[in-house]
Amino acid sequence: MTAKRKMAVIVGLAFGTAFFLTVWAQITPGDGPRYVNGTDLVRPTDYREWVFVGGGLGMTYDAEGNPQSPPRFGNVFVNPSAYRSFMQTGVWPDGTVLVLESRFSESDTRVSQGGRYQAGLRRIEAEVKDSRLPDGWAFYDFGSVDALRETAAPIPAGAVARCVECHTEHTAVERTFVQFYPELLEAAREKGTVKEGF
Amino acid sequence: MTAKRKMAVIVGLAFGTAFFLTVWAQITPGDGPRYVNGTDLVRPTDYREWVFVGGGLGMTYDAEGNPQSPPRFGNVFVNPSAYRSFMQTGVWPDGTVLVLESRFSESDTRVSQGGRYQAGLRRIEAEVKDSRLPDGWAFYDFGSVDALRETAAPIPAGAVARCVECHTEHTAVERTFVQFYPELLEAAREKGTVKEGF
Repeated sequence: MTAKRKMAVIVGLAFGTAFFLTVWAQITPGDGPRYVNGTDLVRPTDYREWVFVGGGLGMTYDAEGNPQSPPRFGNVFVNPSAYRSFMQTGVWPDGTVLVLESRFSESDTRVSQGGRYQAGLRRIEAEVKDSRLPDGWAFYDFGSVDALRETAAPIPAGAVARCVECHTEHTAVERTFVQFYPELLEAAREKGTVKEGF
Repeated sequence: MTAKRKMAVIVGLAFGTAFFLTVWAQITPGDGPRYVNGTDLVRPTDYREWVFVGGGLGMTYDAEGNPQSPPRFGNVFVNPSAYRSFMQTGVWPDGTVLVLESRFSESDTRVSQGGRYQAGLRRIEAEVKDSRLPDGWAFYDFGSVDALRETAAPIPAGAVARCVECHTEHTAVERTFVQFYPELLEAAREKGTVKEGF
C-alpha cells in the first residue's frame, strides 16, 4: 500500500468514527430498565425528564371504593426511546418503563378560585415490558416518599395477579391504560392496536 | 511538511471533528424559541417531549370567577435545556420556552370511582424569556384546538399588562408560577431565588 493510500484509509476511518459517534449519540438514549439481581428494578432517578404521557386527579384502581379526599394527582412518564417507538408502531417495545408518580394536591384561592395543583411527591410505582418474563410485563412498587426504595423486586406471583387482571380487562393497549394518554391513544388508533371497546 | 506529518495533521483534524460532533450532539439541544418576523413565535410541535414541570385541574387565572365545569387540566412543559439550567441555578436562562397546554377532563367509573383523567387538547399558550424584549418576557396565545395557529405574535402591550401583573404579583420565581412546579420549587429554594412569601 502506498503512503497516500494508507493516509486515505486512516482519514476515512477517522471520519467514519466521527459519523458513527454522532449518530450513536442521537439514537442511543440508554434509557431502558436497569436491573440488579436479574429482575430487581433500579428506581429511575431521571424519570422527570422522560416523556409525560398523561395524568389524572383522584383516579384509583378501585371501581367500588370511596373517592380520595383530598384527591391525589397521578403522573405517568415513559422512557423517551419507548415513547418514540410507540408513536411509530402503536405497541410498546421490549425495555419499556412506565413510571407512575403519585403527588399530593393543593389549592390556592389567591390565584385561582377552585382548582387543584400538583404538590409534593407521595409514591413511585413502575411497570416494565421485558420479554424474559412469563407475562412479558412486571410491576414494581418503590414505596412512599418517606421510605423510597432504591431498587424493587417485581410484585410476586400471587399479588401481581390483581395487577395483571386490571391491566388486561381495563386497558386499551397491551397492559397499559393508553385510553388515559391522549397522544398515545391517537397513535394507537392510527396503527389499529387498540383493543375492542376502546 | 513531510507526508507523514501531513497525515498526522489530517487524522488529528478528523478525530477532532469526531469529538466535537459528539459533544455538540449532546450539549446543543436546539430547543429554544423559533421566531419568524423577529418576535412571532413558531408553535413548538415537539413540546410533548419536553420536560413536564407541573399541572393542575380546574385552575384559572380568575381569583373571583366561577369554578370550571367540567374542570380542565393544565400541563406546563419547558424546553429541556432551560429545565436543566433552572435546576442548577434557580433562574430561567434566556431562551426559556414554557408551554401551557389546556386539556379537557373526563371520568370513567368502570376503572375508577371518582377521579378525572386528561383527554383531548383544548388550547396552547406559551411564555418566552427573551432579553431583547422590554419586559424580558413575552406571552403568546396559539388559540384553541379547532383553529391552532402555526405562529403567534406576542400579546400586545395593552393586553399583556394583565398577564405581566398576575405573573409578577402571584408568581414564586421571576414571571413564572414555580410554586405549582414542585421539583423546580425545591431547586429554587436551595438557590434562594424564590420571592418572599412563597
